[in-house]
This record gives sequence, C-alpha cells and structure tokens, in this order.
Amino acid sequence: MGLLGWFNHDVITVLDFNREDFEVLFSEAVNMEKYAKSRLDILNDKVLALAFFEPSTRTRLSFETAMLRLGGRVIGFSGTEATSMAKGENLADTIRMLDSYANAIVIRHSLEGAAKFAAEIAESPVINAGDGSQNHPTQAMLDLYTIWREFNIIDGLSIGILGDLKYARVVNSLVQALSYYKVKLHLISPELLKPRRELLEFMNSRGMVYDWTDDPHNVIGDLDVLYVVRIQRERFPDPIEYERVKGAYRVDLKLLSRAKPNLVILHPLPRVDEVDFTVDNTHYAKYFRQAGLGVPLRMALLKLILKGGD
Amino acid sequence: MGLLGWFNHDVITVLDFNREDFEVLFSEAVNMEKYAKSRLDILNDKVLALAFFEPSTRTRLSFETAMLRLGGRVIGFSGTEATSMAKGENLADTIRMLDSYANAIVIRHSLEGAAKFAAEIAESPVINAGDGSQNHPTQAMLDLYTIWREFNIIDGLSIGILGDLKYARVVNSLVQALSYYKVKLHLISPELLKPRRELLEFMNSRGMVYDWTDDPHNVIGDLDVLYVVRIQRERFPDPIEYERVKGAYRVDLKLLSRAKPNLVILHPLPRVDEVDFTVDNTHYAKYFRQAGLGVPLRMALLKLILKGGD
Amino acid sequence: MGLLGWFNHDVITVLDFNREDFEVLFSEAVNMEKYAKSRLDILNDKVLALAFFEPSTRTRLSFETAMLRLGGRVIGFSGTEATSMAKGENLADTIRMLDSYANAIVIRHSLEGAAKFAAEIAESPVINAGDGSQNHPTQAMLDLYTIWREFNIIDGLSIGILGDLKYARVVNSLVQALSYYKVKLHLISPELLKPRRELLEFMNSRGMVYDWTDDPHNVIGDLDVLYVVRIQRERFPDPIEYERVKGAYRVDLKLLSRAKPNLVILHPLPRVDEVDFTVDNTHYAKYFRQAGLGVPLRMALLKLILKGGD
Repeated sequence: MGLLGWFNHDVITVLDFNREDFEVLFSEAVNMEKYAKSRLDILNDKVLALAFFEPSTRTRLSFETAMLRLGGRVIGFSGTEATSMAKGENLADTIRMLDSYANAIVIRHSLEGAAKFAAEIAESPVINAGDGSQNHPTQAMLDLYTIWREFNIIDGLSIGILGDLKYARVVNSLVQALSYYKVKLHLISPELLKPRRELLEFMNSRGMVYDWTDDPHNVIGDLDVLYVVRIQRERFPDPIEYERVKGAYRVDLKLLSRAKPNLVILHPLPRVDEVDFTVDNTHYAKYFRQAGLGVPLRMALLKLILKGGD
Repeated sequence: MGLLGWFNHDVITVLDFNREDFEVLFSEAVNMEKYAKSRLDILNDKVLALAFFEPSTRTRLSFETAMLRLGGRVIGFSGTEATSMAKGENLADTIRMLDSYANAIVIRHSLEGAAKFAAEIAESPVINAGDGSQNHPTQAMLDLYTIWREFNIIDGLSIGILGDLKYARVVNSLVQALSYYKVKLHLISPELLKPRRELLEFMNSRGMVYDWTDDPHNVIGDLDVLYVVRIQRERFPDPIEYERVKGAYRVDLKLLSRAKPNLVILHPLPRVDEVDFTVDNTHYAKYFRQAGLGVPLRMALLKLILKGGD
Repeated sequence: MGLLGWFNHDVITVLDFNREDFEVLFSEAVNMEKYAKSRLDILNDKVLALAFFEPSTRTRLSFETAMLRLGGRVIGFSGTEATSMAKGENLADTIRMLDSYANAIVIRHSLEGAAKFAAEIAESPVINAGDGSQNHPTQAMLDLYTIWREFNIIDGLSIGILGDLKYARVVNSLVQALSYYKVKLHLISPELLKPRRELLEFMNSRGMVYDWTDDPHNVIGDLDVLYVVRIQRERFPDPIEYERVKGAYRVDLKLLSRAKPNLVILHPLPRVDEVDFTVDNTHYAKYFRQAGLGVPLRMALLKLILKGGD
C-alpha cells in the first residue's frame, strides 16, 4: 500500500488516501504548528476559492486562516449569499467560474456527492469541507492528527464515539480514517441513532474491532479517547423521547469519575450542551486544542496539494 | 480621435473610452493572461473597495481575484449587508467613507446613474460594475475582448444579440462598445423585448449596420458571434405568453445545425436554460472561456487605472 | 500617572488607558497618516479576527483597511452570518476559536460587557468595537484625535455634545476620554435623553466642568467643537413627541449663523438628517475628515498593540 499522494489531488473522502498519506500529512502539520500564528510564504501566487453553500464559520475560517498564513489569498462566498446564488445558477457553472479564478476550491454543500461532482468538473483540486451526511474528510484528518499529537500513536487505542452516529457527517469520515489503524471502537448512541448498516458493513469488511452500547457508563473506564458529537432534537419524532434520552449522552464530571486518568475528550465543535462546561477545566478536555490544530493541519493540507512535498 | 486614457479615470460607461483605449486595454489583458493564475505584484500598496449594493457573485469575485492577483487588497460589502446599510445611510456618505479608505471603488447598484453620482463625489476612481438597466461597461469590455481573442479582429464580424434587448443591462453597453467597430448587428428578441428607442437612435447616430428579427433561425447562418442574454419571466405581463415565447429563444443543437462552423457563442452568465447544456460540449461554446477572461481583463483595467500604462 | 501601555493590551474602555497613552497613540497616528493610502509592512505575520455580532460597516471596514495597510490579514464574520452563529454556539467557544486562529480579536456585540468577557477568555488582545450602549473606545479615541488634529490641543476647548446622550454608546466613551483633559462640556439633549446618572457621577468624580441645556442655541456661540449624535425615533414612547422635538436638534445653517468662525462639527456617522446636508459644504464640517482619520488612528492602535512602540 504505497503513497497515493497529495499534490494536485482532490480530497473528497478519507478513503482517497491511506495511512502513509496521513503520516506525510501529520509530519507536515507538526512543522506547520511553528507558523500557525505567524506566516510562511510558500503559496504567495495561489488563490483559494471557498464555496460554502452551507454556512460553517469554524471550518471556513480555519481554511481561510491556513491559506493566509501561507501567504495565499482567499475568495469566495458563504451562507445567505450562497443560498440566493444557488437559486440562480446550477452548481456546475458556479464551479467552472471558481475553477477559472482560483488555484483550488473548498466546497461545503448540503447535498451528498456535491464535492465529487465539483471535482469532476474542476481542473483545480477540490477539497470537500463537508457534503451530505456522510463525508467531512478534513475534520476526520484533524481528529486523527489531534489523537496522534496527544498519544504519539494511534494503534492500540480504545476510542469511543458518542452521540448521533447515524446522521453526524463526521462520524462516517472518522470511522473510515480509523480503519487504517488497529484501534478498538466503542460506538455509543441511542437505539434510534445507531450507525447505518453501510457503516457497519464497512467496519466488518475492514476487520475493525468494535462494539455498540446505548450507555456510556458501560465503556467509559476502557476509553483512551472519547469523541462526542451532537444529538439534534430534530432527529427524534417525539420531543418527549428526546428529552428523556439526551441527559444520558451528556458528558459531565459524574461520567468522567470513572474515566482513565489520561482520557482525551474530543468534539468537532460547535457544541451546545452535550459536553458540560465544567468539563472544560479538566485535563481531559482537548477539544479546544483540537480546534486550534485545525489551522496547522489545513496549512499542511494546502501546502501538500498546491505545492507538494519537499 | 486620440486616447482618452485610463490612468486615474472613472469607468462609468463604455462611451467614456474609445477604440484606441480598448486596444491599450486588450493588449494589457493579453499580458495579464500570463499572471491570471499566479501573481504580479504591481498594486501592493493599493486597496480596492467593492460596494455591491446588489449581489453579483461572478462580477464581484472576478474583480476581487484580479486585485489579489496584482498584489492588492480588497475591502467592501455585498448583498444583504449592503441592503441594511443602504437603509441607514445615504449613498453619498457611504461613498465618501470608501473614498477615504480605498484607492479605487467598484460599485454595483440597482439605480440608474448611481455610479456616475459616486464618481462625482469620490476623488478616487470609480468603476461601474453595473447600475440600473443600461450600463455594465466592464462586462462589455470583456465581451469585446473575448471576441477579439477568438477572431483576432472585430471589424467585419456579423454579431447576433439574442434575448431581452430591452432590460438586460449588458446589451446597451455591448452595443455602445461595438459602435467603435465596423460590425453587422443582428438583434433578435420577442416583440415585447425589442431594444428601446434610445438604443436604436444611438445606433443610427453612429451609422451602425443592424437589423431586427424575432426568430433566430432567420439569421443564425450569417453569424460569427451569437451573444445570448436571459429572458426573465417577470418581464411578461402574462405567464402564458412567456411560456409560449421562451422556447423560441433557447439556443440548442437544432438551432446550431444551421450555424457557421466557427460560430462563437457568448453569454455573460449566469444562465438558466437559455443555452441548452448540450451546447456546452460543442466547439461553439465560448462562454466559459469568456468568464475566465474576466480576471485578466479586470487585472488590465485595474493596472491601467491605478498605475497607468508603462 | 505613568504610561499604562498598549503592547499586547486589551482595549475594552477608554479608562483602560490614560492621557499619556493617548499621546503615544496620537503621535503614532500622525506618522500613520503617511501610509493610510499606501502600505507599511510591519504586521505581515499577523491575522486580525473581526467578530461583528452586530453589523457596522464603517467601523468594520476601517479596522480591516488599517490591518491590510499594515501588511496584515483579516478573517471574521459580521451581520446575518453572525446572528445565525450566535444561535448555535456560546460566545466563549466562538472567542476561543478566533483566539486560536488569530493574533488579535476585534469584537462588536449588542450586549454590555461582551468585550470584557471575551478579553477574559482570549489570550490574544481583544479590542472593543462597541458593546452594549456604553462603550465604543476606539471611536472616542478617533474623536479626540480629530479634535487634536484640528486644534493641536485639547485642553481649554469648549465642547458641545448634542443628541441622544442617554443611549448613544459613543457619548459615554467620549466623555470618559475627555476626562483626561481640561475642557468645558456643554451637554445638549431633549429632557428625555439626558445623560444617565452614572455619567453625571463620573463627571463629578473627575471634577469635569459641564452644563446641560435642551436648546443648542443657548450654547452654540461658545463652542469650539460641536459633536452630534443621532436621536432615534424608537427612543420616544410617543411618535408625536419625537416629531415635535427632532427639528430642534438638527444642525443647520441657521443654527451655525451664531457659531464661532473656527467651530468644528464632528459626527461618528452614519447620519440620517441630524446634520443638514447644506452644512457639508461649510468649513465647519469635519465629520468626513474624522471618518477618514479612522484608518490611520486604527493603524496606530493595531501597531501599538501587536508590535509595540519603537
């Protein structure tokens, strides 16, 4: 399994890359941490287009900051402007326009497959910043990078993923990314939000070791990493059912009293109340570090795609 | 008729310039094509203000990209933000603010004459990116430039303009720009959307050669260039009349079966369905090239206005 | 009373600084006027985050222009995007994100105390671009700077502040800033919009010389500076009362016929009609100069905070 490579490649799903590619990326990202608050002028002649058909301040700003820190420039649109645009023009023509203006395109879209479609049209590399409910590859790369920065290793870890395992787009990408490593997965969710059959089949086909429970207390003591994603009220047909369930999936000091001493809690953010604010002050809380690493990780990604390795 | 000149000049209508100016612009734009995907640092100390009181992603991003590719910086507003602003402050005060911040101002506004008004107030050069229903000079310059890049000449061409000839703001500017050349114009539109009397009078006063028809089939075989603009449903008092008419003005393979082999189809974009998607794959389709040339053309424009010729 | 200092400091209220700090700032700003339309590359490795939870085109663009003129980069959000974001995430998490991306944060928020709260969370310096109804320190610094540029001195001047003295957020900051100087203050407002008791107590505690009147004609002849703020219709429970009152607080040529020859009229802008447009052409009108000085003043501020004095 050799290097699939980064230079001039699209980033549509994590499965477009492999473990060796991740190692190259992570090694580059460590280097980029030195410049994440200053500047490294290596993409001065590049323009990055951000096509955010769905708003996402955090992901958008981390890409934007990463590009600017590398000396590049950023153009694009997001939110309401994008909505009104989407009405007037088909996606293909919009992508063609951005392709002729910019050197790479970051796209976020509510429709499954939008990023792949864009990549088929554009000559410039296209980076998927989240489409549909299944893919958010750069978030998964960031998640893995944070785990690796915390433990110096990923193989051998026991990793819990807690929350909406059915619809949260990052879950799918994260599990795919973890499939390149020898980890033990504990999937934790209400019955209603269990992983889709496709994800279970994927894990089986890759020989991944996993179990599922609806109660985090059952596995908290075994975890090295607890990855939390939000459970949205709208997923429940019955609001009363939601109210009954949500407390059980809220990470608080009581749950953590049974945790390993060096447990690492991650969250893609933004959070609402699925991680209690009292947890922020514990040494378990690494989600803010995780958010901060989004800039050097994406600097590394942009460098590898637009300029290649050294 | 000598050079009217670009340096430090406003760009309000194409009639502010002449054929010699266009030649200077086009020659500069050819040079800029070399840098349209990289960077030429000649406007490093300049800031361009974009005042888009009306949204226009394509025009806005092409100005923004052009400025960034020249090493400059961009500030401004567009869309909903502009709307709420327009309520709170008169246009004159907004322009004075931008004038004191930036080195040049690009304005787009729904009101006829807004750009001229802005130019009277601002000391910095003002560029009209579309105001009212009559002027969009930089689009017309881009249209001419694309034609010139395709044929190496404009004189002698037979040019059809198809669609809403009454309200589409680019039509007026394009005809004005073409008045500096010896072309044959075929105007093609429904009766309801024929050119305004003022435009006909303008063409007469310039001794332009033109005819009008309501059926593109009548002239398709004679055209070197077919310029298509959208027909908007709202223009028709009776929706049934619109449905009856629109098919006849849709450019498709059937219409093109009677075209000259080197016909060039242009469109200012965005399009809805007035050019059928099957046309995209033919060698006639040059509207994507046209869109892409928007960056080098506007790089040339910004260079000439903010820095002058060499 | 020594220098409190600027380097790496938050700017939450003008009371965080003193007269000596202002002198350092103003001296730096005079220097920056040379570069306010070009560029001085001293913040190349810095990124400024603009967190405008409330829209403010003028303040936002002047910060953005200032940062870009110093070679820095800008990221952020404003207006509707901010609104939707505010729903999904608590302020603390948003600030933590920006803190990890940027080297300094400019915040504008409708809630009193939001800037102070942000400063407590962020490690990077936080600049208050207006929060609640009491603080807008950089506007007050700009106001003082403009006065100083006009008169070369602030001590000894007679300064009128006219309009909504109760809710206009800049009034509080301006009075605080003036407390470091020996000025005579004439406060002019309808009875309903008199200064709050806290502001009166502040002026008393600082031994400031001031009086109040509801009629500008009473004091116009004594003024060196007339600072005008808007009176908003919404402040009046009874619309008829508003209509009756507003004319009396409108600055026009008739009022100015009794002014000193070198009276200076300032206004934070945007204005609606509280300064008549005929006043714009008089030599009294300095509000456009004031707006323009916003860029060099904020260049000086950003330089001192992010790089320090020389």
